[in-house]
Amino acid sequence: MINVAVNGVGTIGKRVAHAIKLQKDMKLKAIIGYDPNPVLKTTLEPQGMLYGTDLWVVDENSLKKFREAGMIVNGTLEELLKKGEIDVIVDCTPEGVGREYKEKIYSKYNVKAIFQGGEEADVAEMTFNSVVNYEEAFGKKFVRVPSCNTTGLIRTLYAVDSKIGIERASVFIARRAADPWEYKKGPIDAIEFEEVPSHHAEDVKTVLKNLNIFSMALKVPTTLAHTHMVEIVLKREAKKDEIIDAFEKQTRVILLSRKEYPSTSMIREKFRDYIRPRGDIYEIVVLKDTIFVEGKICRWIHVVHQEADVVPENIDAIRAITGIEKDKWKSIELTNKSLGILK
Amino acid sequence: MINVAVNGVGTIGKRVAHAIKLQKDMKLKAIIGYDPNPVLKTTLEPQGMLYGTDLWVVDENSLKKFREAGMIVNGTLEELLKKGEIDVIVDCTPEGVGREYKEKIYSKYNVKAIFQGGEEADVAEMTFNSVVNYEEAFGKKFVRVPSCNTTGLIRTLYAVDSKIGIERASVFIARRAADPWEYKKGPIDAIEFEEVPSHHAEDVKTVLKNLNIFSMALKVPTTLAHTHMVEIVLKREAKKDEIIDAFEKQTRVILLSRKEYPSTSMIREKFRDYIRPRGDIYEIVVLKDTIFVEGKICRWIHVVHQEADVVPENIDAIRAITGIEKDKWKSIELTNKSLGILK
Repeated sequence: MINVAVNGVGTIGKRVAHAIKLQKDMKLKAIIGYDPNPVLKTTLEPQGMLYGTDLWVVDENSLKKFREAGMIVNGTLEELLKKGEIDVIVDCTPEGVGREYKEKIYSKYNVKAIFQGGEEADVAEMTFNSVVNYEEAFGKKFVRVPSCNTTGLIRTLYAVDSKIGIERASVFIARRAADPWEYKKGPIDAIEFEEVPSHHAEDVKTVLKNLNIFSMALKVPTTLAHTHMVEIVLKREAKKDEIIDAFEKQTRVILLSRKEYPSTSMIREKFRDYIRPRGDIYEIVVLKDTIFVEGKICRWIHVVHQEADVVPENIDAIRAITGIEKDKWKSIELTNKSLGILK
Repeated sequence: MINVAVNGVGTIGKRVAHAIKLQKDMKLKAIIGYDPNPVLKTTLEPQGMLYGTDLWVVDENSLKKFREAGMIVNGTLEELLKKGEIDVIVDCTPEGVGREYKEKIYSKYNVKAIFQGGEEADVAEMTFNSVVNYEEAFGKKFVRVPSCNTTGLIRTLYAVDSKIGIERASVFIARRAADPWEYKKGPIDAIEFEEVPSHHAEDVKTVLKNLNIFSMALKVPTTLAHTHMVEIVLKREAKKDEIIDAFEKQTRVILLSRKEYPSTSMIREKFRDYIRPRGDIYEIVVLKDTIFVEGKICRWIHVVHQEADVVPENIDAIRAITGIEKDKWKSIELTNKSLGILK
């Protein structure tokens, strides 16, 4: 049994903590809070998904704030780590903050840590994907799970690259402007231009090291999901059926029809109707009837639920970094079953 | 002096009618209304841009509605055309309606007509662009000005194709969901997937007939402008400066910096500050610092103001179809000066 703590209970942290609770080979020993905000409070209420979990806080300053809010707190992160019971910390703190914790605290207490894609790649010894490089994480101390967009690209591009071979990939991203709860962030009615190239292509290369990939991104006023338009040049001519087959055989990638699901809102509604927690979509959704093959050139549109797709990779990363499961397919199966992932 | 009538006073019609009033070699003899809606009423008020223009209506049914609303109407479109005073009708009626008018009325009264991009290409004898094929319109009866996105692509791609040569163009479009006044249309918080390929590439080929082009599009919840991400393969290697030079020399294409103008809203604000009517942007705005050249591959981001970019082409089309100005550069200069177009 692996004892896990989750530092940071925001968009990703609350989902990862919940997913850990659903694993039979892990125990969620602690969540570490920063301030007594409504989201954190809800997760700890009797109806909340983290009810009963031990709450710790980042430092003395936080401790004061939580006690003033009348919440029961066990102590600070350092006090937790001094007890030596935690095997792995999943760091879900805001962008760039994870590196500070690593240097000041995780290294000091010699605890393994999993960082998120908001941190730069060199915060960890490797960037992780369950299918591509599970075994490389064995014995590592610091591992990073890349961001939602990168995870989406790794899953879909690896599916085609490993079966047919990709000569060159160009990706054009319409990014959601903010998450649904971020009511003060993002353009109301504008399209923002990201720097060219966007950071996504470089980030994909931290996992798919030899892929020839370029990316551009626009930020658009929606909160539900990212959408990617992909154009790849294959290493040989291929039929549309081969591409569909590659996606069908890839775990955590599913195919839906654009005719039936013509928008991100329709796709989100489908997963709400599956009664998934919060309507989360752990899978990358490829729109089957957008796959367009012309000789060696292949294009498609796929959707990335930014709040959820990295959750299964975080769970697999806990098994890989601790070595409790050496077979990646077994870990993937355990994770998929526990979260109700379609395939 | 060419006598012009504009049929349909919506997003494009009111702008084209206003632009005609600003030309010294044309007279706006009539606008033809469908119903007494607030937009049309505003244009005819003393503060409105079409104040004093003769109002005609599409048919007897319309006539009744306008008279009930207490508006002064001269008569129906057929009565107007019977007088034989109109040289050119600019048809700005809704998508698909222009073809009906052509078959039932324009042909019957032997009047020249200019259609918009909402009509299919075969409604007219040719699809028009001021720079690319002005002379081909001489002596034609029916000409079509392509839609805003197509016009944007024709201007930018022709700039590079005519100077350097394009082997292959891939275009990825984030479409605005609706125009600002369309308060009941479009997704609130979703990204819609358009069919692959989108219609834009085929439409560009109605003007740039030999261009090897593919397009994909997503519809996003914004009203201010479309944004395109373009990737082209050049016929030879080129330097970034050559691409910039090609855009700088192209009329109705301007360069702005992404650092200074990081969103469609910032660009629209700039043109509002120029005190353009309605803040219209007739130019295609290329973000200079998004131009990214790698050998023969070149990418950039540009912005298309969907309400306005086709207006100058409509004015030039009137001169070309009637033959009152045989020199395209003279027509372009007249149009640009009258509308305050930057270059």
